[in-house]
Amino acid sequence: MEKNERSTTIPGKEKEVDIINIKGIEDIGYVQPDSILLNSLAPEENTQCQHGLYFQDGERRVDYILTYHIKKPSSSRSNRQSSRFTDNAFTRSLRRGTARLGRPPPPQPRVVPEVASQDHSMDYHEDDKRYRREEFEGNLRDMGLELEKDEDTKTPGVGFVKIHAPWHVLCREAEFMKLKMPTKKVYEVKQCSGVGAKINTLVNKATEPLHPNVEENRAQNVKHLSYAFSREKQHLFDLSDRDSFFDSKTRASIVFEVLKRTKCTKAKYSMGITSLLGSGVYTAAYPLHDGDVDGENVEPNDRKLLYEEWASYSVFYKYQPIGLVRKYFGEKIGLYFAWLGLYTQMLIPASLVGVIVFLYGCATVDNNIPSMEICHPRNNITMCPLCDRACNYWKLKEACGTARASHLFDNPATVFFSIFMALWAAMFMEHWKRRQMRLNYEWDLTGFEEEEEELKDHPRAEYELCVMQKSLKKEHKTQKTEKEKLTCRDRLPAYMTNIVMMLLMIGVTFAIVFGVILYRISITAALHMSNNPTTRSNVRLMVKTTAAIINLVVILILDEVYGAVARWLTVLEVPKTDKSFEERLIFKTFILKFVNAFTPIIYIAFFRGRLVGRPGSYLYVFESYRMEECAHGGCLMELCIQLSITMLGKQLIQNNLFEIGIPKLKKLIRYIKSKRRTFQEEEREKKLQRYETDHFLEPFAGLTPEYMEMIIQFGFVTLFVASFPLAPLFALLNNIIEIRLDAKKFVAELRRPVAARAKDIGIWYNLLRGVAKVAVIINAFVISFTSDFIPRLVYQYMYSPDGSMHGFVNHTMSYFNVSDFQDGKEPMDPHHLGYQVEMCRYKDYREPPWSNTPYVVSKEFWAVLAARLAFVIVFQNVVMLMSDIVDWLIPDIPKDISLQIHKEKILMVELFMKEEQGKMQFIDSMTPCDGKERNNHAPVARSRSIPHTYSHTHANNF
Amino acid sequence: MEKNERSTTIPGKEKEVDIINIKGIEDIGYVQPDSILLNSLAPEENTQCQHGLYFQDGERRVDYILTYHIKKPSSSRSNRQSSRFTDNAFTRSLRRGTARLGRPPPPQPRVVPEVASQDHSMDYHEDDKRYRREEFEGNLRDMGLELEKDEDTKTPGVGFVKIHAPWHVLCREAEFMKLKMPTKKVYEVKQCSGVGAKINTLVNKATEPLHPNVEENRAQNVKHLSYAFSREKQHLFDLSDRDSFFDSKTRASIVFEVLKRTKCTKAKYSMGITSLLGSGVYTAAYPLHDGDVDGENVEPNDRKLLYEEWASYSVFYKYQPIGLVRKYFGEKIGLYFAWLGLYTQMLIPASLVGVIVFLYGCATVDNNIPSMEICHPRNNITMCPLCDRACNYWKLKEACGTARASHLFDNPATVFFSIFMALWAAMFMEHWKRRQMRLNYEWDLTGFEEEEEELKDHPRAEYELCVMQKSLKKEHKTQKTEKEKLTCRDRLPAYMTNIVMMLLMIGVTFAIVFGVILYRISITAALHMSNNPTTRSNVRLMVKTTAAIINLVVILILDEVYGAVARWLTVLEVPKTDKSFEERLIFKTFILKFVNAFTPIIYIAFFRGRLVGRPGSYLYVFESYRMEECAHGGCLMELCIQLSITMLGKQLIQNNLFEIGIPKLKKLIRYIKSKRRTFQEEEREKKLQRYETDHFLEPFAGLTPEYMEMIIQFGFVTLFVASFPLAPLFALLNNIIEIRLDAKKFVAELRRPVAARAKDIGIWYNLLRGVAKVAVIINAFVISFTSDFIPRLVYQYMYSPDGSMHGFVNHTMSYFNVSDFQDGKEPMDPHHLGYQVEMCRYKDYREPPWSNTPYVVSKEFWAVLAARLAFVIVFQNVVMLMSDIVDWLIPDIPKDISLQIHKEKILMVELFMKEEQGKMQFIDSMTPCDGKERNNHAPVARSRSIPHTYSHTHANNF
Repeated sequence: MEKNERSTTIPGKEKEVDIINIKGIEDIGYVQPDSILLNSLAPEENTQCQHGLYFQDGERRVDYILTYHIKKPSSSRSNRQSSRFTDNAFTRSLRRGTARLGRPPPPQPRVVPEVASQDHSMDYHEDDKRYRREEFEGNLRDMGLELEKDEDTKTPGVGFVKIHAPWHVLCREAEFMKLKMPTKKVYEVKQCSGVGAKINTLVNKATEPLHPNVEENRAQNVKHLSYAFSREKQHLFDLSDRDSFFDSKTRASIVFEVLKRTKCTKAKYSMGITSLLGSGVYTAAYPLHDGDVDGENVEPNDRKLLYEEWASYSVFYKYQPIGLVRKYFGEKIGLYFAWLGLYTQMLIPASLVGVIVFLYGCATVDNNIPSMEICHPRNNITMCPLCDRACNYWKLKEACGTARASHLFDNPATVFFSIFMALWAAMFMEHWKRRQMRLNYEWDLTGFEEEEEELKDHPRAEYELCVMQKSLKKEHKTQKTEKEKLTCRDRLPAYMTNIVMMLLMIGVTFAIVFGVILYRISITAALHMSNNPTTRSNVRLMVKTTAAIINLVVILILDEVYGAVARWLTVLEVPKTDKSFEERLIFKTFILKFVNAFTPIIYIAFFRGRLVGRPGSYLYVFESYRMEECAHGGCLMELCIQLSITMLGKQLIQNNLFEIGIPKLKKLIRYIKSKRRTFQEEEREKKLQRYETDHFLEPFAGLTPEYMEMIIQFGFVTLFVASFPLAPLFALLNNIIEIRLDAKKFVAELRRPVAARAKDIGIWYNLLRGVAKVAVIINAFVISFTSDFIPRLVYQYMYSPDGSMHGFVNHTMSYFNVSDFQDGKEPMDPHHLGYQVEMCRYKDYREPPWSNTPYVVSKEFWAVLAARLAFVIVFQNVVMLMSDIVDWLIPDIPKDISLQIHKEKILMVELFMKEEQGKMQFIDSMTPCDGKERNNHAPVARSRSIPHTYSHTHANNF
Repeated sequence: MEKNERSTTIPGKEKEVDIINIKGIEDIGYVQPDSILLNSLAPEENTQCQHGLYFQDGERRVDYILTYHIKKPSSSRSNRQSSRFTDNAFTRSLRRGTARLGRPPPPQPRVVPEVASQDHSMDYHEDDKRYRREEFEGNLRDMGLELEKDEDTKTPGVGFVKIHAPWHVLCREAEFMKLKMPTKKVYEVKQCSGVGAKINTLVNKATEPLHPNVEENRAQNVKHLSYAFSREKQHLFDLSDRDSFFDSKTRASIVFEVLKRTKCTKAKYSMGITSLLGSGVYTAAYPLHDGDVDGENVEPNDRKLLYEEWASYSVFYKYQPIGLVRKYFGEKIGLYFAWLGLYTQMLIPASLVGVIVFLYGCATVDNNIPSMEICHPRNNITMCPLCDRACNYWKLKEACGTARASHLFDNPATVFFSIFMALWAAMFMEHWKRRQMRLNYEWDLTGFEEEEEELKDHPRAEYELCVMQKSLKKEHKTQKTEKEKLTCRDRLPAYMTNIVMMLLMIGVTFAIVFGVILYRISITAALHMSNNPTTRSNVRLMVKTTAAIINLVVILILDEVYGAVARWLTVLEVPKTDKSFEERLIFKTFILKFVNAFTPIIYIAFFRGRLVGRPGSYLYVFESYRMEECAHGGCLMELCIQLSITMLGKQLIQNNLFEIGIPKLKKLIRYIKSKRRTFQEEEREKKLQRYETDHFLEPFAGLTPEYMEMIIQFGFVTLFVASFPLAPLFALLNNIIEIRLDAKKFVAELRRPVAARAKDIGIWYNLLRGVAKVAVIINAFVISFTSDFIPRLVYQYMYSPDGSMHGFVNHTMSYFNVSDFQDGKEPMDPHHLGYQVEMCRYKDYREPPWSNTPYVVSKEFWAVLAARLAFVIVFQNVVMLMSDIVDWLIPDIPKDISLQIHKEKILMVELFMKEEQGKMQFIDSMTPCDGKERNNHAPVARSRSIPHTYSHTHANNF
């Protein structure tokens, strides 16, 4: 793979990636003279470096790029022009950069050039920046890095610093970072023997077409023993090809490591690379992609391979080439895709079972006694009106359709399914832990400590600026230059704002949900008044659907708003490190988005139809709107509608429309525009250096949005699964697209991220666990309170005369004497049904009018309530116990991996013992009689050969 | 400290430790001739080695001891004698050894000498063993260890192999084991500044007398930077005193490491040290203690210091010198005592609050309306009889005492207390995590990976033997010598036995509890028949107390039985490694002991008084015994009695009687015997070598029993705390003694254990978490079902006419028409109370006789049940949520520690960068013009000085 990076490639068209910027250039009509284009390079002479992957000598790889803004001290006209250009292309990317680091930019010396009128102060700032750059680059050179500048590119206004890490720097840093590198020592990965092996080969053959066409997947029988790189142990490693010993990802992360450690100290306050980026001294910092993804004569490279074998919809049924993803993007991103892949895989059985449960519901709908009773033609139950005055008494038969439909989601199989899904979630967690462990082993992360990475995290630019300002203030007063830190008191206003805003946002969500409820109530009432009978019959469905769509739209809008608010609030807090920034941001976003997505659903599941009151004393909102009831057959049906609309809508619109549609639209626009473009421009575009094309890509903004989207989907899949068994199926369909969509984004649309080592998915695992835990409780409540499962059981075992469900419908309904209606609330047309109604029925457990305590909740109510609560307790504890047992039964480390790790350890000791032996023999031959070690009292043993206590065959048996 | 190890010490009397063995020697009347005593040593010449801490040259430390059985080929008489001796002292210690490794010894070539008749085969075995020993010792020498044999000690029949690890072996192994050692580099541990510092000094002054008088506790302002020992980085370490660079604990564990790795391979099947110990080739393997703990002229040493400043009751109020404990015993034991210390400390606030809650109960007992109503003289409620025929109607007034007493434990403060204790448990867990992290930092374990230690675990001797047998069998059939492993099929019988036995044991517990119930019922009935009125009035209390004591005795006996059964079952399973043996053993012991301790308590809390039936249709056991009822005021009182008796009894008897009493008794016996003993014998004892005195100590049997005891206590403290708020206080008092008791045992009564590195307390933490989790649920049930808390609330808010508790007692009792008694069940003397009883009352929510459905459970019953269940759900989820929040709010790593770790990392990088710089300058000066590295393109930067990017002051600010 590596050797391709050095060979000549003809730059392909960067069709998808640079269209905005190209447009920007075109808009201002800036035409780059050819002379400038070529003055730094002689293209025919040196094709290797033409594409910017190498320094001008064509030998030294470019490992990292820093960009900065240049303002040429040329004529006023061109100055104006270039600064206008700056405003277009460069500041946009600058803003993008700062957006990532925190938007809006904190109150700091503004660095965005503000054109013409402020020329003087701008120049001062520019000079200051140049000095800082010079110092920083000097320090980088001191650290052993090699730099090359390129200010005269085809992208005016942007200067590039190309950084190359020479061999000795790579070695030194690899040693500091304790990078595990493959040694020369190869060992055989044990294959199962006997029956296991046969099955294995069979499975392998069967899944052959599912594996991506990538070399990584072949020949996994041997593995190189890995050892933390150390210059003193260089002989262990295969250094024959120094250029490819560290791959491009590793080189980039090594350079990034040095960058993070380097500081500008000449100015009053030392600034690290984050501060320099934050204050605009540099505008961007990124490593280079390996090559182009498409185009005619593009040489094969990892990026292209990924593009073809991974980031393509045509391979949607295949496994992902995770090894290659990790090799190109680093462990952190590799883990994300591995996680996403496992999640998608795990969704397959879940959606299968879900579909079966749904089909079971369909199949048994005709044998369901309660809905049969409701639909029975001789059923003659008169129901109380559903709204005041406008509505009329109605026959229970009318609810036949809803009752049958709700059986689809409200049957005993649902209970089974929600237990299944709780265990599924536990299994998923466990499988992920195992997968993670396996990847850790395969990626040689087993010795790597997470903390080490984290603790190196340097303060964020914003934090340093804040501290600087605070010190400056204090200095004015006390004349002492002491380094400060932000105390609680400094942060108090931000914390207060945070709390207030969070509460406000949650309040907004609640208010909107309440608004939708009001909409539903009032529209229902209004439509009931209409005289058109078809309108009236379709009222319920129409209102439900429109309300659900309104909810969806609100959720989609608020999702974006909340994302922005969470970011803004986190910036206000000025967290110290990037890690803490990310964690706080995730926390806030998670809370807001979850509340946003699930509030309407929770309302429908647990509150709707419960706050109705009873005929004769209904509950009113604003003294005129009666609270809405559920259709007969529980609210489960409505919950299901709401869930499916929200989930499908979110997925379709957010993923497919936003993520697929908008790029397509951009492409279309570009195509139309390109017709107006001259041939020359396209030619120019072709000749862009690698670092220039990469500069036009979007910067990598972290994995947070990707994970967040998946976590919320996981919420939909688990939280209310009792009421919507098809959720896993929808999630599965979505994720199959999602994987390739994200892959495309990472391969073709983003700047290459710096590879980050990570052993696990961090906070996300905890969030998943949290969601899975909450899911158990919510499902318990859905089954016991939203569905009619418990009342049916109670009826069957406590009240039914013959132990069957016959009579259940009658049992759940109480009597109401119509003479007890409050004045003005009775139906306007009491004879609507054709006879005088004396008693009407309503769904509740209350005493009949003729009892001593009419309309008081009856004993049955309490019995059913007790049964419901008991079910919640039993369900919650049993499922939690079962999850814990699953957790405990499945070992976190797969057996073969733990054996391999053990074997590696033994091989390592063996290797060192041999080395030891070699050394000793060497010493013995050097010092014929007298050892140097005086304290050593073992003259006997030294020269004997050390027995091979660990032979290969023996080690195999552990 | 270290230098004392080498200085002359006069051996003190091992008063407490060797008495059984001494007795054994005395019994057989074996008198060691003086000539043998002295033939290997010239005591006056070399006092240092006299005590066996050094080789005979007085220079090389004894780091480890292997003992074996020797049989002198002397006269038949002396042979007989020595073998008899062997049978007494040696085989006892052998059996003790195997008991630790698994009792009974597996079916293996028996090695215990079986005297005279089998002389020949014995000789064969002996020879075989000698050959193996010779091979093993040869291999040890090959590994670089130095050995010295001593067969002619004052302990006949036992040969000692003294092992010394020379410097180069120590270095090599330390490097392999990645031992972190202190470097020369010292840095300042940051102290808080400003107000924090002042408070700190104040606190330090206040707690000054609480700190043990040990050097470790002083001068903690600086810390040595630690780094994994490596011979290539020797210059980092302070090697001026090679003898004390590795302390005795480290040396022992290094030797143990080598021992574990060494194998006998000449015989057909390779045997490691565990196999050799298991098959009796060696009888024991242990490191030496540092010196004597008491006696006149004993030089100061760590062991003595520990004995005085730690293992003494007189320092019970002080903190433990954990650093010293760790230094002497290693991290694993250090962690146990640190954990025990923290637990005891945390019990202080818990018992304070518990006492306050109890006092609140005492103070409010006179204002408690329900008990006032019961005790009111005008209260005239006639209660139904408590047993058939023999018992009479009674006045509720009679229950006055019980009602008042039960208020002590059944008041709203109890609810608060059980929430408090749930949070306390969460806090305890968190604090322990932090403490552990702090200790990890202080003990330089931060980089150490647990897995590494675990994976090195070699198969247990029993496992290897089993495998050997299986291979032998197979070989007979197939003639192939292939290394086998135990498959599931081999283990199936053991697993089946395990399951059956576990179920049987649990069944036994249940049966015994049931037996006690029958005892209670029948005795109560019998005593009620007696005519003596005082007997009758005291019946209840007497029966309760005797039953609780019977339960206690059964628990104590079964505890021992179950311990043995669990061990036996685990041995049957033949687990592969010691770690898995320990885990399985712990798991089984935990289940059995928990079931044993808590079954009677759970019965009383949740079943007693609930399966009674109602007057007219009582529930009968064996058709004649009516199930027992609770006294009025709930079963909480009885639960409390049972709990306190079980807990106090267990602690008093198990700890104090078993652990203190028996040693005292032994001492006493020894004192009496010593009067019969000659002076000569005592003299002999004095001159015992260190390795001989240590040989007579009990072997270290692991920390499992200590932890198990504490876990069960933790169960008592948390599980039923709602009913017994004084539990923490009792636990606290017990633990104060327990710490010193355990300390004494480790310092003076056990052989020194091999220091094991450990970062955490392993499986015990999970068990603690499990207990804490279960505690939440059990407390929820105790509050809602066992106590009257919920019925009172329900009455107050739903039924009370004036919102007060007046009338509650009346409300909880139903009416019974005495004419509805079944024939022969009515009281014999209906006029006992002086009037004709028509209606009697009983405690239950049932319809009165005059309702349509007499004696059916009433609406109140269901309402109260629903409230109870709702409370359980709310309590469980709220408390679990709060625990999670506590978990989340308290960071696992204390802030100062994470700062220190960060600082250490930075200092390390700085150190290496300086070194780097030095090297480069060296290279530059060596190669005047041309570098060796061809690939290095940075001729500019090399000789420049590397800037101090991390200055001390800067690093302080992180």
